[in-house]
Amino acid sequence: MLETVSLAEKFSRFADQWSPKLIGELNGQYVKLAKLEGEFHWHAHAEEDELFLVVRGRLRIELRDGVVELGPGELVVVPRGVEHRPVADEEAEVLLFEPKSTVNVGDGSDREAARLEWI
Amino acid sequence: MLETVSLAEKFSRFADQWSPKLIGELNGQYVKLAKLEGEFHWHAHAEEDELFLVVRGRLRIELRDGVVELGPGELVVVPRGVEHRPVADEEAEVLLFEPKSTVNVGDGSDREAARLEWI
Repeated sequence: MLETVSLAEKFSRFADQWSPKLIGELNGQYVKLAKLEGEFHWHAHAEEDELFLVVRGRLRIELRDGVVELGPGELVVVPRGVEHRPVADEEAEVLLFEPKSTVNVGDGSDREAARLEWI
Repeated sequence: MLETVSLAEKFSRFADQWSPKLIGELNGQYVKLAKLEGEFHWHAHAEEDELFLVVRGRLRIELRDGVVELGPGELVVVPRGVEHRPVADEEAEVLLFEPKSTVNVGDGSDREAARLEWI
């Protein structure tokens, strides 16, 4: 039987921020949930488009030519190659959709990538 | 500049049921919104996994070996090849995520596929 995935229930399973968790897999893509607070670093993904859907809170995605502001029920697709920096003044709960190859810290970063785990 | 997509605002742009609308494209996949009410027909997609995320209302996905019930904030991934029949007793608003090649009526159906349009 197939599993019903409750976003709220899955968000209740973890507390660490900037460490996306796996909740789904389809067509070579992952569905991930993340809790974000504060400022991430500027980065880009050369080969992967990345979808951010805010479930709770507010997320600001800074771009080199502007900024995108997202509240609950709002999404944006950051195309491959576009430098971006996610920022959340208070904790935001976010659903990510991106290829399985995507590394959260971006390409060529000397930062340690989050270890992906299923929740 | 990138576009912020509000699900509520996009849902307000159409009323027809069982006719998914395009709101996003990434990595060879489409993000679609659909309003569903009543019973669809049994079908499957041989090559495409399909994600259903309920935004408003309730959706029941009947399977040959059971049923999955989804409310707001709940999702399921129907793997390729799995026969399924979506049913909504009252209108449900649903986000779909699937490959661009996916035809809503399923493979080999003699029913007319929904014409995909961007909203």
